[in-house]
Amino acid sequence: MSVFDHKAYDNHEKVAFFHDAKSGLKAIIAVHNTNLGPALGGCRMWPYASSEEALTDVLRLSKGMSYKSAMANLQLGGGKSVIIGDPRKGKSDDMMLAMGDFVQSLGGKYITAEDSGIAVRDLQLMAQRCEYIAGTHAKFRYDGGAADGNPAPSTAYGVFVGLRASVRHALGSDLNGVSVAIQGLGHVGYRLAEHLYKEGAKLYVTDIYPDNLDKAVQEFGATVVSPDEIFALDVDVFAPCALGAIINDNSLSLLKAKVVAGAANNQLAEERHGQMLKEKGVLYAPDYVINAGGVIDIYHQKMDSSAEAMRKHIEGIGDTLLEIYQRADEQGLPTNLEANKMAEERFS
Amino acid sequence: MSVFDHKAYDNHEKVAFFHDAKSGLKAIIAVHNTNLGPALGGCRMWPYASSEEALTDVLRLSKGMSYKSAMANLQLGGGKSVIIGDPRKGKSDDMMLAMGDFVQSLGGKYITAEDSGIAVRDLQLMAQRCEYIAGTHAKFRYDGGAADGNPAPSTAYGVFVGLRASVRHALGSDLNGVSVAIQGLGHVGYRLAEHLYKEGAKLYVTDIYPDNLDKAVQEFGATVVSPDEIFALDVDVFAPCALGAIINDNSLSLLKAKVVAGAANNQLAEERHGQMLKEKGVLYAPDYVINAGGVIDIYHQKMDSSAEAMRKHIEGIGDTLLEIYQRADEQGLPTNLEANKMAEERFS
Repeated sequence: MSVFDHKAYDNHEKVAFFHDAKSGLKAIIAVHNTNLGPALGGCRMWPYASSEEALTDVLRLSKGMSYKSAMANLQLGGGKSVIIGDPRKGKSDDMMLAMGDFVQSLGGKYITAEDSGIAVRDLQLMAQRCEYIAGTHAKFRYDGGAADGNPAPSTAYGVFVGLRASVRHALGSDLNGVSVAIQGLGHVGYRLAEHLYKEGAKLYVTDIYPDNLDKAVQEFGATVVSPDEIFALDVDVFAPCALGAIINDNSLSLLKAKVVAGAANNQLAEERHGQMLKEKGVLYAPDYVINAGGVIDIYHQKMDSSAEAMRKHIEGIGDTLLEIYQRADEQGLPTNLEANKMAEERFS
Repeated sequence: MSVFDHKAYDNHEKVAFFHDAKSGLKAIIAVHNTNLGPALGGCRMWPYASSEEALTDVLRLSKGMSYKSAMANLQLGGGKSVIIGDPRKGKSDDMMLAMGDFVQSLGGKYITAEDSGIAVRDLQLMAQRCEYIAGTHAKFRYDGGAADGNPAPSTAYGVFVGLRASVRHALGSDLNGVSVAIQGLGHVGYRLAEHLYKEGAKLYVTDIYPDNLDKAVQEFGATVVSPDEIFALDVDVFAPCALGAIINDNSLSLLKAKVVAGAANNQLAEERHGQMLKEKGVLYAPDYVINAGGVIDIYHQKMDSSAEAMRKHIEGIGDTLLEIYQRADEQGLPTNLEANKMAEERFS
């Protein structure tokens, strides 16, 4: 089985394997679709057990970026790159320079950025050899604050805006008094909690690390619950901001919330779980639509745009979700499939 | 199994898969090694049963070109491209234009040329989109004759020069009175017969098509034998100019020649058959060394060199073979392995 017959191959425009003997770099770049613009997507370094596993990952992730960028109203296509290796032990400057050569060799069809295992310093090394790098120097923040290079504030703001729109659509209310269970208080989850608290929401939180839980109790009056209770709570909204595949056969039988809206990637274990949410009367905010604030941030930084333009663009996530919900209602489709359909209409 | 784990993967620098939705083009370019220069290698269009088969082919062929170019003293690396499809039914102008885009997108790391299923007209279409095309317009011939774009005269001349050097090494004689069995009287085999005839060699010929056999009888006084007799003849030299894998366990037991020197690609069914030839006391002219006249021709045409420079370069094939023979004798190695070793020393 080669690339064109691979189960995760979906008419990707280009899939390139690269080996640099000097540094030992082994990397794959996948360009899924560039009809809307150059393919943007992070570079991931991971100790894949096999290059087959790396290929599966890069094919899926690059396709996901086509959908994400299309639904985020970005003039960008979908791409991704993976470096096969352990980012803690296997990284070298020569390797990152060679990766820069590789990205450059695609002539701008692919623009890379951060992902797991790749830090800003790595991107800066690539940038010595390559002009198609995003996310190396953030100049502004969506709210006018000082940028620190972390797009989490934009992601969190987008999830907040999207969650608010979803509550309005499902419950006909604003966030005052609405109860939200947040799974994961990391960079994005914690900031989401802060937004929700300011709008009067009642918060239930969990995390496997205790640090932010205490702060959330003190600053937002949040109630801490155990990780295995969080999706069974009798709340209005469940906001997954940590693990993927958290909407599965097990969790679905326990879920009591009326809205699922959070920052985590790949929330549905399988696409069919979107249909099951619909049948239970739960409104699902498609993950790659609601968590697009980060890629919108990277785009505006790359384009030397402004905080104001970025903020308005992120706020568009709410409108996009409302359009998905309306069309899904009309078509009788689950929201995840309606989002996919809309994305495909846009990038095809 | 993906590219990096593929059985035919040999630290290739780059392997790129390309799909163009509009024309339906599916193609793979493999760049094996560019330490000596850009990777030159033909584009083959073939109705592969699977893309796995196409990948195996392009990995092996591109690697072979690194060895061939290195031993031909060319400042070129090894590459190859394959288009998955039937050249008689599946070809379109749009497809060739898209292939031009694909070759161009490698920025000159790979230079393409003719191979099975791809004609000069196809290359001319690619050239509308791409500057890295060789073999579209031949301007001169190694002997000063009018070029017709077919590098067969150069290949035949190189095989002739190499065969003459091999006979001198093995038999200590020139070609006068030496008996040669030629398998295949195509573009190359027929021209080789002509060269040998002029030097006084006694020719035995076979082919599955009768056309050139009659001509060879009349013009060169050749003796026609049946295809299954040709490698069992009691002659000095066996010159395979048709099929690959003709040196195998079966043919080896019948072979009586003291020299094997011909134009066919991949003459040895397996590398171990080189050792078996050595043990039988047969001198083997490594195929990719002796048949490099074609790639030397393409290189000189591309560089706008001259007939004189091209001719001298082709004549270097004889010296290269003598160097291989001498080193193989010193090392006690079969000539095929000694050639591989020398090539690797050059391009590593």
